[in-house]
Amino acid sequence: MTDNYEDIGFGAHKIGFGERPGIAVVDFQTGFTDPQYTLGGRPLVERAVENTARMLEVARAANVPVATCYTAYSSRRDAPYWKIPTVLEEFHHGHPCTELEPRIYDKDYDVVFCKTGPSIFFQTAITQFFIKERVDTVIVVGCNTSGCIRASVIDAFSYGFRVAVPEDCVGDVEEGPHQANLLDVGRRYADVVTLDDVLDYLETVRGRNET
Amino acid sequence: MTDNYEDIGFGAHKIGFGERPGIAVVDFQTGFTDPQYTLGGRPLVERAVENTARMLEVARAANVPVATCYTAYSSRRDAPYWKIPTVLEEFHHGHPCTELEPRIYDKDYDVVFCKTGPSIFFQTAITQFFIKERVDTVIVVGCNTSGCIRASVIDAFSYGFRVAVPEDCVGDVEEGPHQANLLDVGRRYADVVTLDDVLDYLETVRGRNET
Amino acid sequence: MTDNYEDIGFGAHKIGFGERPGIAVVDFQTGFTDPQYTLGGRPLVERAVENTARMLEVARAANVPVATCYTAYSSRRDAPYWKIPTVLEEFHHGHPCTELEPRIYDKDYDVVFCKTGPSIFFQTAITQFFIKERVDTVIVVGCNTSGCIRASVIDAFSYGFRVAVPEDCVGDVEEGPHQANLLDVGRRYADVVTLDDVLDYLETVRGRNET
Amino acid sequence: MTDNYEDIGFGAHKIGFGERPGIAVVDFQTGFTDPQYTLGGRPLVERAVENTARMLEVARAANVPVATCYTAYSSRRDAPYWKIPTVLEEFHHGHPCTELEPRIYDKDYDVVFCKTGPSIFFQTAITQFFIKERVDTVIVVGCNTSGCIRASVIDAFSYGFRVAVPEDCVGDVEEGPHQANLLDVGRRYADVVTLDDVLDYLETVRGRNET
Repeated sequence: MTDNYEDIGFGAHKIGFGERPGIAVVDFQTGFTDPQYTLGGRPLVERAVENTARMLEVARAANVPVATCYTAYSSRRDAPYWKIPTVLEEFHHGHPCTELEPRIYDKDYDVVFCKTGPSIFFQTAITQFFIKERVDTVIVVGCNTSGCIRASVIDAFSYGFRVAVPEDCVGDVEEGPHQANLLDVGRRYADVVTLDDVLDYLETVRGRNET
Repeated sequence: MTDNYEDIGFGAHKIGFGERPGIAVVDFQTGFTDPQYTLGGRPLVERAVENTARMLEVARAANVPVATCYTAYSSRRDAPYWKIPTVLEEFHHGHPCTELEPRIYDKDYDVVFCKTGPSIFFQTAITQFFIKERVDTVIVVGCNTSGCIRASVIDAFSYGFRVAVPEDCVGDVEEGPHQANLLDVGRRYADVVTLDDVLDYLETVRGRNET
Repeated sequence: MTDNYEDIGFGAHKIGFGERPGIAVVDFQTGFTDPQYTLGGRPLVERAVENTARMLEVARAANVPVATCYTAYSSRRDAPYWKIPTVLEEFHHGHPCTELEPRIYDKDYDVVFCKTGPSIFFQTAITQFFIKERVDTVIVVGCNTSGCIRASVIDAFSYGFRVAVPEDCVGDVEEGPHQANLLDVGRRYADVVTLDDVLDYLETVRGRNET
Repeated sequence: MTDNYEDIGFGAHKIGFGERPGIAVVDFQTGFTDPQYTLGGRPLVERAVENTARMLEVARAANVPVATCYTAYSSRRDAPYWKIPTVLEEFHHGHPCTELEPRIYDKDYDVVFCKTGPSIFFQTAITQFFIKERVDTVIVVGCNTSGCIRASVIDAFSYGFRVAVPEDCVGDVEEGPHQANLLDVGRRYADVVTLDDVLDYLETVRGRNET
């Protein structure tokens, strides 16, 4: 990649974390996290699951809002024109591939949404939940970087939130599109950070909330 | 790029054109089309302007709905956290860089929207316009492929439309991200086509409307 | 009511039915249809359930898309600031008051959404479903006329659909607000019709589809 | 009106003001405020203009975000199926009836949106602006109570904001629907207050911001 984007100012500054984070956990459902499924169990996704599990433990202890989602339809009839046959054939209400990954989901804490497009913000109640919680900073985690993460980052940005993407908490089928999409969003919409950066930030938030 | 995506079914089939197209023209405003501006006048964008101008002539003759947009804000206060300083500093209502490119915009025909996020669908009235016109197929053109085009394609798909992106009617700062984003969306959400494909389709639509 | 609205043109014409209807069934969940619940079992709602059941039988036979919804939250934390305590306390995922009314819901046919605001269109996938089905006319049924029906009618209208509300397929706690809201929407956004009008229309659609 | 709603808990408590207000000014455009236009210059609207002008002076001094909007279309083609002929015929970009009322609009302070549905929140950037400003309380003012105010209140509530409607800062063609709609929303979604209540609140906010 050359720096023609940088030359005209893309990615010129960091956005920075705000005062109140919210975590958007995208598509950590077994269809993506369990190798028994066609789209499931890729190494970058497995790494993201493990790192996200650590993040969420800290986030919940700090009383930070956690929104989690899965993709599912009533039938092919209400699904958009996906070019991925597995999504059309298997991501239906009640199919086991739509169950949330147990290492990630805490049903007594997390707020859960069913989504139907790539973005966790597209026609779900996450925006309302984050507004009510007065969130100003959205941490986007999950899979896949070049699909639903990219879409979710765009929407979080569009809604006026500060957005951060910890690169080791998002995963994909392959490294190439994973990196290319992080580069695209880091130039425009979001800070690309690491799990450790987010953990430090969440500790600060926890400290402030306990005072 | 390897074919691990293809191996698990990504991009397995074409979506195909439907019965009623609508054209979504994204950000062909002078800030991107005129070389006097920081972000303006890139060769891939210039090519896209010329090709789109040809397409729109045919589309209007076929009475196909054309929605066009520009990005502008009242001030920095209502702009999202862009990491591109020029957008924050210059894309304000009344600034000449927000004027629609004259080779593209026909004020007696096109429906125009001001948008504030990357996607032409994000909080604009394009969806309502296309529903009322009974559009089932959205042709996305404009700039930049790795920014507002990518975002607009995701939303058009999410809203349940068939989506086609003519690769020679969308432009970007550089070829690399242009191609990488076409690949990403072609695997999931849209058919990547050419101006000629769209012209053939529009002629079919025109023929049908005239019968 | 005087006619000052009529004098300046409100409600001056009918919208009329289009070519492709979709049915939006709002909040026919036991919390509203079963008298054992605080908000449940009002006579106008019971009438609406019976009439809607008849309508849906015909709609399904004509292959008309049916979208149904219920209101539910993960907890009080993700609910908006409702001034109705029962909604905050009981409308939670898994509570029996969120189950769809069995006289209404056909799980093998209907597409189901969980909603969180008053409108069935607010941050749900109904718009995408209706776009994909090429719906141009939305028939709104359910409860309550002065709450979620009013909100759903506004949104169906705002999205560019033709809207019809059969007055005997929507219900409320009391006749007064029921009538007042039908008057408000009939002046601006929708045709107020009857079950019989819709049945006639659906028969026409069925005949056309069978040809 | 009877109290069957109250008996089952509707309107059981006040929502209360939060920490950060935002003002949503709905449709104070000359088409509604100037008696020379068909829909313009009703006494309740005139009262609302005068009271809102007082409120906005205080809001701006307190650095409270003010979003203002007008309704306009490119042509009849992109307008929804309004049953009010004047809106279809005259509310077009550039028509003088779409100009913001000069007693209300401050172009150096207010953020302005063009809207196309009844609600100021429907497909406009107000949500993004209020999120970025960290607004938690929306004060809805403007006209008409039984149309665009009702719709805007529903959406502000649905997005998770605390909502207040000062009854003397919203107007309508007639007193009956004005009161009936305030009753409907006060039972469910919003606190119905007065200009004086809002002025007191804004003074508190100003005091806090100056400290």
